[in-house]
Amino acid sequence: MDLQYGLELVGTFVFAISGALAIREQEHDMFGAGFTGFITAIGGGTLRDILLDSYPLVWIGDVNFLYSILVGVLAAFTFPKFLSKLRRTFFLFDTLGIAFFTVLGVEKALSLGVRPEIAAIMGMFSAVMGGVIRDTLTNTLPILFRKEVYASACLAGAIFYLILNSFNVPRDINLLVSIVVIIAIRMLSMKYKLSLPRLD
Amino acid sequence: MDLQYGLELVGTFVFAISGALAIREQEHDMFGAGFTGFITAIGGGTLRDILLDSYPLVWIGDVNFLYSILVGVLAAFTFPKFLSKLRRTFFLFDTLGIAFFTVLGVEKALSLGVRPEIAAIMGMFSAVMGGVIRDTLTNTLPILFRKEVYASACLAGAIFYLILNSFNVPRDINLLVSIVVIIAIRMLSMKYKLSLPRLD
Amino acid sequence: MDLQYGLELVGTFVFAISGALAIREQEHDMFGAGFTGFITAIGGGTLRDILLDSYPLVWIGDVNFLYSILVGVLAAFTFPKFLSKLRRTFFLFDTLGIAFFTVLGVEKALSLGVRPEIAAIMGMFSAVMGGVIRDTLTNTLPILFRKEVYASACLAGAIFYLILNSFNVPRDINLLVSIVVIIAIRMLSMKYKLSLPRLD
Repeated sequence: MDLQYGLELVGTFVFAISGALAIREQEHDMFGAGFTGFITAIGGGTLRDILLDSYPLVWIGDVNFLYSILVGVLAAFTFPKFLSKLRRTFFLFDTLGIAFFTVLGVEKALSLGVRPEIAAIMGMFSAVMGGVIRDTLTNTLPILFRKEVYASACLAGAIFYLILNSFNVPRDINLLVSIVVIIAIRMLSMKYKLSLPRLD
Repeated sequence: MDLQYGLELVGTFVFAISGALAIREQEHDMFGAGFTGFITAIGGGTLRDILLDSYPLVWIGDVNFLYSILVGVLAAFTFPKFLSKLRRTFFLFDTLGIAFFTVLGVEKALSLGVRPEIAAIMGMFSAVMGGVIRDTLTNTLPILFRKEVYASACLAGAIFYLILNSFNVPRDINLLVSIVVIIAIRMLSMKYKLSLPRLD
Repeated sequence: MDLQYGLELVGTFVFAISGALAIREQEHDMFGAGFTGFITAIGGGTLRDILLDSYPLVWIGDVNFLYSILVGVLAAFTFPKFLSKLRRTFFLFDTLGIAFFTVLGVEKALSLGVRPEIAAIMGMFSAVMGGVIRDTLTNTLPILFRKEVYASACLAGAIFYLILNSFNVPRDINLLVSIVVIIAIRMLSMKYKLSLPRLD
């Protein structure tokens, strides 16, 4: 459990960095960058918890998440060029992050007593809605609506977790396997430029 | 009451189709289309219930709404061309849908004990905010801010319902009459290209 | 306390006017203008209260706020040219408004038992998120992401209030001083065209 808590803080930190760096091309100041880092890091979990009426919100009840974000934003301010060069590393971290937060989101929703169908949506929301809210606020079309396999990988992984869960696969194994499934879908679809069909 | 429940599911289904078809022109994949169908169908009621602290949210407490959306989105995927040709039919359905959801939203708000002024706003929100959220996420100016008489028809119908209600008009009659009022305002304003004055 | 309540109503009225006038350049009708006035006036406080699970929302529990907004919107409809000429006066009122709502937002958050770090964010959100939501809905890049010192002035003032508060400075004095701090930061940064550094 301590490992999980540590990973949550690290995930929040990474999301804050990638959020702060995401608006580099637009006109903005450091405050705007910090704000988007913050929104990216807390947006998904906040939306999930509001929809499920689960209070206090994680970052309001536990101030450590706020400090993870602050450190992430300060890192983005201090080493923007260095961190931007790490784009490939970040893609890896971001993929790891959305996989991890998807599965934790599914578990949290289940623990609040909702049906699996709802838990799957909540898992995906936890992972991707922070970025969606950030993109919407900064007048950008969210990645979700672009061709990349992104949110759909999370949804697939969430459903995968729920299926294994219904077969009583032990939690630790399920957690690991489902995270790997999400990462694999995302990585392979990027590598082979796969995308879901369009609607026309 | 059973009729009403059936109509709610059908309305959700229709909103999901029109939401999924709404982003056809933009770059997107099937996941993006399904996502906008989902948001369009649940957005208005979800916002209303969060503002009124009414939990569980309708689609979280009753999974039938989720399946209505799923069927609607799959229909949009399977027959996109056929459904797009039905544009006039959809305009009719959409108008029927916003009229119906406006009045139900007013009733739900009243049943939660808020004042009529608030109930009128909640009725309008139930009907139009799903589309507003969808348009905002996909970087489109919501219809609400364009010249068409849309949300204002809902607000007028909501106020109409509340006036008849204060005169103790029986619910079934009031429901029907108010829905007709909204449809009539929208239809007539489209036919005669009426719009509210601008501010200049 | 009566003075404070009166000021809250006046602040809501001013926010509604500036919100209704904000979309004058876009294609829109009077309904759209009224809607943005409404969103601008209630958005920040509503977001704060949803995040803190504080119900009923202020404008739902006390209908006077709704009437303040209505009067503000009607004023914007009746005297749009006159009010637009008062741009400088409005800048003053808006600055006064965000300063005032920041400090009240901090106090409300503290009274709900959250930590000072959270209260600072909530204060800033109360003041600026109404405008952010309005800009996002109308497809405009929120002022927050532009170079002006705006939300950062609110955050600085909120932190200032919390520091004085931790030294047990009497509430009335702290309120006044913190409001002046926010106004001064905003005014001076406008006058001398100061802005926070960019991230590049």
